[in-house]
Amino acid sequence: MRYELYYWPGIQGRGEYVRLVLEEAGADYVDVARTERGMAAMMRMMEARGGTPPFAPPFLKAGKLVIGQTANILFYLGSRHGLAPKTEAARLWLHQLQLTITDFVLEIHDTHHPLGPTLYYEDQRIEAKKRTSEFWNERVPKYLGYFERLLEENGGFYVTGRRVTYVDLSLFQIVEGLRYAFPKRMKAFERRIPGLVDLRDRVASRPNIKAYLSSDRRITFNEDGIFRHYKELDL
Amino acid sequence: MRYELYYWPGIQGRGEYVRLVLEEAGADYVDVARTERGMAAMMRMMEARGGTPPFAPPFLKAGKLVIGQTANILFYLGSRHGLAPKTEAARLWLHQLQLTITDFVLEIHDTHHPLGPTLYYEDQRIEAKKRTSEFWNERVPKYLGYFERLLEENGGFYVTGRRVTYVDLSLFQIVEGLRYAFPKRMKAFERRIPGLVDLRDRVASRPNIKAYLSSDRRITFNEDGIFRHYKELDL
Repeated sequence: MRYELYYWPGIQGRGEYVRLVLEEAGADYVDVARTERGMAAMMRMMEARGGTPPFAPPFLKAGKLVIGQTANILFYLGSRHGLAPKTEAARLWLHQLQLTITDFVLEIHDTHHPLGPTLYYEDQRIEAKKRTSEFWNERVPKYLGYFERLLEENGGFYVTGRRVTYVDLSLFQIVEGLRYAFPKRMKAFERRIPGLVDLRDRVASRPNIKAYLSSDRRITFNEDGIFRHYKELDL
Repeated sequence: MRYELYYWPGIQGRGEYVRLVLEEAGADYVDVARTERGMAAMMRMMEARGGTPPFAPPFLKAGKLVIGQTANILFYLGSRHGLAPKTEAARLWLHQLQLTITDFVLEIHDTHHPLGPTLYYEDQRIEAKKRTSEFWNERVPKYLGYFERLLEENGGFYVTGRRVTYVDLSLFQIVEGLRYAFPKRMKAFERRIPGLVDLRDRVASRPNIKAYLSSDRRITFNEDGIFRHYKELDL
């Protein structure tokens, strides 16, 4: 079966967590909105009357199923491609971790959009500075400290043990993204999360991920995505 | 089995979506942090070394399982108490809807905390006004319009059809909360969501929910929760 991924074509955004899973799994998929007439196809699916229209991208078409919400897509894909454990308890735990990452991603987004997602960054630069400062003082230590602690307690290899899961792929993306958006702040902070830095390297060196990162399927970070580099926010 | 719900004792907050499910199901549960020494027990579980410590309340203890993240808890409870459909496809769809509600709840919270969750409201009143204005102009119509449309397309009874699910209980809470926090704005807006208003009434009149709402187990809305009534934000 060829999966169809639907996501905004110009950014990594939330779609990237799905792309990383599909790539690590070596799954057959097409990134629909990056193909000709793909954007129109994506909009049609969201506007379709009846059925199960997604609220927003990303969503994944898997045969007849259309699955929306990033963490929900990973929950579905994880157990089908060996990127999640098999028991219900372990699957719920992994999903819980992914939902915590989801919350963090929204807070990352809000550093440059504290006044809301529909206004321009340029209209909320002062507020973005304040929010970013609180983000680095309080939220980054809380979120990344939590995952660092889980890693430590599990032997430091992957978050749930010796086998890679979709949560590890997402944490790779978080470290990469924070490095891109806040190079100075992140450089100083990385001393406090040696386990996550190791995990980032471990994921980056996996053959399928390595091949993906050097391909043109990996969109470069830019200032339309979740992780944006604005010099004034990186003190 | 007696469930143990762990959540901050003084607010409805995110715990309320779980309470509504437990109450509708007639499940045996204890709201641990509202009992003597319950807060200490909750903190101990979050600080425990090893195992699967939750990042934040709410979390649910179900036998040996400890499940965190609101939508994850509902996913678990829903299929066990007849508040979710049985097939995988339908369960994923329902969970997807709950995750969309989760996103909305975070945006509701950000109306009074645009500069971040760790600062006081009093330190961000001006920004809260701006964010609230964008919230009502753009976000409420987008989110509630989506659920209104699903309701319409499904016959207008419950969101996925004739049977109540945990998503309907959450939508009841959303309507109640918006009425509490923004009575004027919501009154004007309700003309645009007749289906959701009917759904709210339908849920409120279910015997178990009705009994719950008039009991002291239902904490009253207040200005420490997600839905806060600040006059200056309700123009």
